[in-house]
Amino acid sequence: MSSLDIPADFADLLQIPVGSVTTIGPSGYPQASAVWFLAEDGVVRTSLTDTNQKVKNALANPKGTYLFLDPASPYRTLELRGDLSVEPDTDIAFLTLQLVKYGLTPETFGRPLDGRVVLTLTPHRVRTWG
Amino acid sequence: MSSLDIPADFADLLQIPVGSVTTIGPSGYPQASAVWFLAEDGVVRTSLTDTNQKVKNALANPKGTYLFLDPASPYRTLELRGDLSVEPDTDIAFLTLQLVKYGLTPETFGRPLDGRVVLTLTPHRVRTWG
Repeated sequence: MSSLDIPADFADLLQIPVGSVTTIGPSGYPQASAVWFLAEDGVVRTSLTDTNQKVKNALANPKGTYLFLDPASPYRTLELRGDLSVEPDTDIAFLTLQLVKYGLTPETFGRPLDGRVVLTLTPHRVRTWG
Repeated sequence: MSSLDIPADFADLLQIPVGSVTTIGPSGYPQASAVWFLAEDGVVRTSLTDTNQKVKNALANPKGTYLFLDPASPYRTLELRGDLSVEPDTDIAFLTLQLVKYGLTPETFGRPLDGRVVLTLTPHRVRTWG
């Protein structure tokens, strides 16, 4: 992350395996789920399929947030709030990159490779706790 | 929890110490944070002070959600989505009850006791993963 000031003592939370992303659904309710992600170059990206509800939500309403809880202590958290965008994942280049974080390849991933898109959060607000 | 069908194999996630609650802020962005909570009688309640932003958000827009991540595995989650309400915590009765879950009393809590309110989520949607 470079475009926002992430306090150095919270930067490790961007390396954990699972973050909680919240989008806003068609009825206006927030929807939260745990996702794999890759945080680098000032943004948080995750690979989804184009039929995923989070993708539909982000296209209709780009406001979102990520909450990262320290796996060793849920009393230490980092929230990144900002705008969501969706782009096609041409040649599953991003998925392939994300899977490296998890010790996997597209071949060993075991999930659909078709219709892959990248959901990107560009944060404008950082909140830390703990 | 009684008013909604929480799958029995996810009910333990309502006993964990920390849940992630999301409200929607004045600019329409979701705001997520980790909170202590008490889940019983079909609702999820948390004690906050009346100056807390989550309280202000809920009063202006009652749509919210809780995400519970298994502390032993973030790949097992429970989400409860629904409507938020705010009531005064007369005689800090609810705070006192919530603190029992954490082995504390109002005297040992070490946080402000004035201006306490109860933020209640009445879920209408249950989502499980893992």
